[in-house]
Amino acid sequence: MGMRVAVAGASGYAGGELLRLIAGHPHFELAVATGQSQAGSPLGAVHPHLVTYADHVLAPTDPAALAEADLVFLALPHGESAAVAAQLPAHTKVVDLGADHRLIDPGAWTRYYPGPHAGTWTYGLPELPGQRAKIAESTRVAATGCYAVATILALAPLIAAGIASPDDVVVVASSGTSGAGKSPKAHLLGSEVMGDLSPYKVGAHQHVPEIKQASGARTLSFTPVLAPMPRGILSTVTAKPQSAAVDVRQALLDAYAGEHFVRVLPEGRWPHTAATFGSNACHLQAAVDVDSGRLIVVSAIDNLGKGAAGQAVQCANLMLGLPESAGLSANGVAP
Amino acid sequence: MGMRVAVAGASGYAGGELLRLIAGHPHFELAVATGQSQAGSPLGAVHPHLVTYADHVLAPTDPAALAEADLVFLALPHGESAAVAAQLPAHTKVVDLGADHRLIDPGAWTRYYPGPHAGTWTYGLPELPGQRAKIAESTRVAATGCYAVATILALAPLIAAGIASPDDVVVVASSGTSGAGKSPKAHLLGSEVMGDLSPYKVGAHQHVPEIKQASGARTLSFTPVLAPMPRGILSTVTAKPQSAAVDVRQALLDAYAGEHFVRVLPEGRWPHTAATFGSNACHLQAAVDVDSGRLIVVSAIDNLGKGAAGQAVQCANLMLGLPESAGLSANGVAP
Amino acid sequence: MGMRVAVAGASGYAGGELLRLIAGHPHFELAVATGQSQAGSPLGAVHPHLVTYADHVLAPTDPAALAEADLVFLALPHGESAAVAAQLPAHTKVVDLGADHRLIDPGAWTRYYPGPHAGTWTYGLPELPGQRAKIAESTRVAATGCYAVATILALAPLIAAGIASPDDVVVVASSGTSGAGKSPKAHLLGSEVMGDLSPYKVGAHQHVPEIKQASGARTLSFTPVLAPMPRGILSTVTAKPQSAAVDVRQALLDAYAGEHFVRVLPEGRWPHTAATFGSNACHLQAAVDVDSGRLIVVSAIDNLGKGAAGQAVQCANLMLGLPESAGLSANGVAP
Amino acid sequence: MGMRVAVAGASGYAGGELLRLIAGHPHFELAVATGQSQAGSPLGAVHPHLVTYADHVLAPTDPAALAEADLVFLALPHGESAAVAAQLPAHTKVVDLGADHRLIDPGAWTRYYPGPHAGTWTYGLPELPGQRAKIAESTRVAATGCYAVATILALAPLIAAGIASPDDVVVVASSGTSGAGKSPKAHLLGSEVMGDLSPYKVGAHQHVPEIKQASGARTLSFTPVLAPMPRGILSTVTAKPQSAAVDVRQALLDAYAGEHFVRVLPEGRWPHTAATFGSNACHLQAAVDVDSGRLIVVSAIDNLGKGAAGQAVQCANLMLGLPESAGLSANGVAP
Repeated sequence: MGMRVAVAGASGYAGGELLRLIAGHPHFELAVATGQSQAGSPLGAVHPHLVTYADHVLAPTDPAALAEADLVFLALPHGESAAVAAQLPAHTKVVDLGADHRLIDPGAWTRYYPGPHAGTWTYGLPELPGQRAKIAESTRVAATGCYAVATILALAPLIAAGIASPDDVVVVASSGTSGAGKSPKAHLLGSEVMGDLSPYKVGAHQHVPEIKQASGARTLSFTPVLAPMPRGILSTVTAKPQSAAVDVRQALLDAYAGEHFVRVLPEGRWPHTAATFGSNACHLQAAVDVDSGRLIVVSAIDNLGKGAAGQAVQCANLMLGLPESAGLSANGVAP
Repeated sequence: MGMRVAVAGASGYAGGELLRLIAGHPHFELAVATGQSQAGSPLGAVHPHLVTYADHVLAPTDPAALAEADLVFLALPHGESAAVAAQLPAHTKVVDLGADHRLIDPGAWTRYYPGPHAGTWTYGLPELPGQRAKIAESTRVAATGCYAVATILALAPLIAAGIASPDDVVVVASSGTSGAGKSPKAHLLGSEVMGDLSPYKVGAHQHVPEIKQASGARTLSFTPVLAPMPRGILSTVTAKPQSAAVDVRQALLDAYAGEHFVRVLPEGRWPHTAATFGSNACHLQAAVDVDSGRLIVVSAIDNLGKGAAGQAVQCANLMLGLPESAGLSANGVAP
Repeated sequence: MGMRVAVAGASGYAGGELLRLIAGHPHFELAVATGQSQAGSPLGAVHPHLVTYADHVLAPTDPAALAEADLVFLALPHGESAAVAAQLPAHTKVVDLGADHRLIDPGAWTRYYPGPHAGTWTYGLPELPGQRAKIAESTRVAATGCYAVATILALAPLIAAGIASPDDVVVVASSGTSGAGKSPKAHLLGSEVMGDLSPYKVGAHQHVPEIKQASGARTLSFTPVLAPMPRGILSTVTAKPQSAAVDVRQALLDAYAGEHFVRVLPEGRWPHTAATFGSNACHLQAAVDVDSGRLIVVSAIDNLGKGAAGQAVQCANLMLGLPESAGLSANGVAP
Repeated sequence: MGMRVAVAGASGYAGGELLRLIAGHPHFELAVATGQSQAGSPLGAVHPHLVTYADHVLAPTDPAALAEADLVFLALPHGESAAVAAQLPAHTKVVDLGADHRLIDPGAWTRYYPGPHAGTWTYGLPELPGQRAKIAESTRVAATGCYAVATILALAPLIAAGIASPDDVVVVASSGTSGAGKSPKAHLLGSEVMGDLSPYKVGAHQHVPEIKQASGARTLSFTPVLAPMPRGILSTVTAKPQSAAVDVRQALLDAYAGEHFVRVLPEGRWPHTAATFGSNACHLQAAVDVDSGRLIVVSAIDNLGKGAAGQAVQCANLMLGLPESAGLSANGVAP
């Protein structure tokens, strides 16, 4: 028997990926898909790749319509999901793909986002210790940000195990352009982004407090870079080892033993984004660079998969008592 | 209950896509995957995106091992599948993704391929009239070539209906680079293909006789172009209308009514390849260009999906009595 | 001694390429660069690649300021250049990169463009017979459209020589995204165009009358396709031979003997766009496809080079009595 | 009067870019271009973009032929240039684009390269203090490696000025695929690299000792990443400030005052690779990230321009007493 799920903000890239996953999900049925500016349009015009929903018409983002679903995915711009969520019945299960309910510290929210802090929901990263059970018991879950997923999965177990120092972590992470959204902006035109690597928000990205909160990092230098590809995040994380002799890769293997979607690669092979395209997987590899005295962890995800819609469906599966991997694939689409 | 399927030539791009589809197929179980030069390697090293088969080791292409499967997919280079097929038991079901058994006319074979003509199998394009039943009854099926799928689906119903003239058909079709295979060649390096459109085999492509045989075209100008993208074929087909007043789009709608994987787009929207990425869909649109006196049909497919592995799985489903769309998606992965 | 040149519409892609060529031109000095919405901005903010003009500030598009230059390039949207041109003194030399003054037939203008027909200027394609001298004597020149350059250079000499029939010409041409301009539109986002081939204006592109007018084609099917690369046009032109035995390639060699920027490739090699990137070159190759009874000519250009700014500078050189190739390169930038 | 220059290794990507720059150089004339495996081929077949050299035939790499030039560029694989150089007359000026003569410490050479250390030549980075004069007086110059150029220009002046600590420098740098060369390898196929970010040689790249030697860094974590674009390097350099109050950007402005090819961007704008495509420019920007206690410098170059051939021509100009920027452009080709 199917669960009826709703998607608010279905016209964007994360919303489109949610719809794609819902269409292939063995236990989900699409109750309603909403989109503000494109309400009234058939999905075929908005997401030409979603053939099976081509005639499904986008509804306005009306909390009453959303409330009829068993679970609501909110794929709205940062700062907009809290208002919608507040109008949903308490028993309606909600997964928010936006940032509104991720941060614990209101000061961190205020520093990076407009408007008041909306409060904190269960953090939607099942692979963190203890988090899977919390998500399963929650009616409100804040899914992890895309850069944050890639970076936290690489870093958190190493800090928790005392292997990496929480101080002076340095991260450079590159993302495909879908992470920048579907609003037409000149710097996101194909003519601009093809052939280009472009850093942005240097020293000021809004995922920094989220990464620190969930990974245990105390000081963190984070530089995001826009890369010439539609999807994918590669996060290169370096940190100082707490002791001279550590097996970083083994620590990751231990941390993720039994995890279906997190794969620590065999020695000698490094993660690359194309292998995660379209999947809910995170690939990891680690090494200690003797010369520099730093350990290096590289993670790769699909920013719309494990970094957004995949992650959200994984949380929804837990919240609804379904198999955690239902409707999700650990295999990417390549080449 | 699962069907055991084998993939010969699993290290190439079509082979990799077959494995990906098999991994997600509700009724398939991978019996054996073979690859000549990479036999002995774990699939994780060959196809890093196929996490769930990471530890599955490529076997040598041994007919005895293949024969144990319920169905064998042959994803071998042109001219190599006939030899392997000849060593398989008559009752073993086989889908050949190569060209060896597609052509009826031995002369057409000899003109484009080396070696002797291996004979003709049931042509694996279920959307052609009557073909679905033939495939279901066959133990040997020759899946359609990638350019051929895109072009035949656009053209065949119009010639059959007397709408398009079979003479003087002009086709220009562009393909993503995976269509050129995984063998390292200088002109296929990323540095060469990114930013480049490059025609090849002008007036001499081996899919010409196949397109003519299956579409009914009598004379056909076909120009293939390599495009800077990993997947996708866009085929632009122009032909002369047989009469002044024809509704080409309606003819396509009639021809493909009820087809799950062939979608004639709403008026005003044209197919584009990204919408078919990772899917088994073919998108079509048509118009009559009054000025030129020609009708134009454009089709888009994923060359590894409907153009190769997807098509092959669709045929296999029919041959095994499974639901035709099992393990296949009409929805693409975008952006 | 330098010529003072002005660029109206300098903030767009053609305008930016004009500035790049002017910066490297041995006889040009930039008098003024104008841009409507970005007037007041330094060029460094608009075109970060133009380091040597980084502090040059965009002026408003004021005819009085433009009139001080020896020659004015108009790189304005279609339909806007006529109004500006009308306010320039008669002796001011002007090259219009827009469509306003290309067409002879007002009816053809009205069919494809808004507003009244502005009249006809000397057509700016020096490689057409007799055109070089006309351009040199003109004060007003309408540079050729990008698709038109690629297609006319492939087709015109063959029709003129009686080798190709002017009837039933079929052209499929693909362009890089810069041809679609710099205005932010959702379908031109990098996320949309990467990995995508997308036909548009099928049977209705505004370059059709221009191609017919300058090539001698009487009926022409023209399908433009947006390709996943920033620059480049590949035009595949097929036509019917007027007689059985023709040497199409030799006819092109004869037509372009002595031309610096048009290169007929050695037999067996076909043009591809990357080889023309950043250049003012057009590469050509031709063959007769015996099977289809059609001749095939393929041409490649950089749509911003020979297709826009390069072409315009070439015309300007002629109009100013400078060496025709001054400041232009036949060599592309590759890979 | 022209200088006769030779290119050994002209069939590769750096060799091709050298030829392109030589073709446009006002004082250079191509004496001979050599290539081992493709000797005898016309350049038109090897580098289709170099129209003006299309009929120039590649010679074998014969030191006697090279010796007739005023200056020889060696664009050979690492470890091969020393042998050729040893056979050239002492008075023949040589610029080696390979690594053979860059390192001072033989131990560093041995750690990263095969074969014996060939000795140390003048380091070819004119923007380093005092280096311009040394290059001008040298007959043998070792041009800087591509990643090294980008990283050293960002880092060296900050360490020299006591602003950045030489310890614990962390660099993540991404390169376009031309940096990986033109030899056909499966992982460099277009199908593999498009849409992919792929780290390699993590903690073990051969440019590390070169960066340390020329920048003054003592410990350096360096992670290179292959990016889906043909050209360009973006290097993100973070280091610890030596004192609390530093103006990193001003320090860069001071260091590069008067430099034609190094551009420190206006505040608020960060370098991106596309703006340097085809140029000899390096773009820089810097900031202090208060949160992390690190300073961040980002540099962008074209790996074949300032990172290889452009740099080499710049050195050659100095060695030959020509204007340093002759034949080179600070402007990129964009979009």
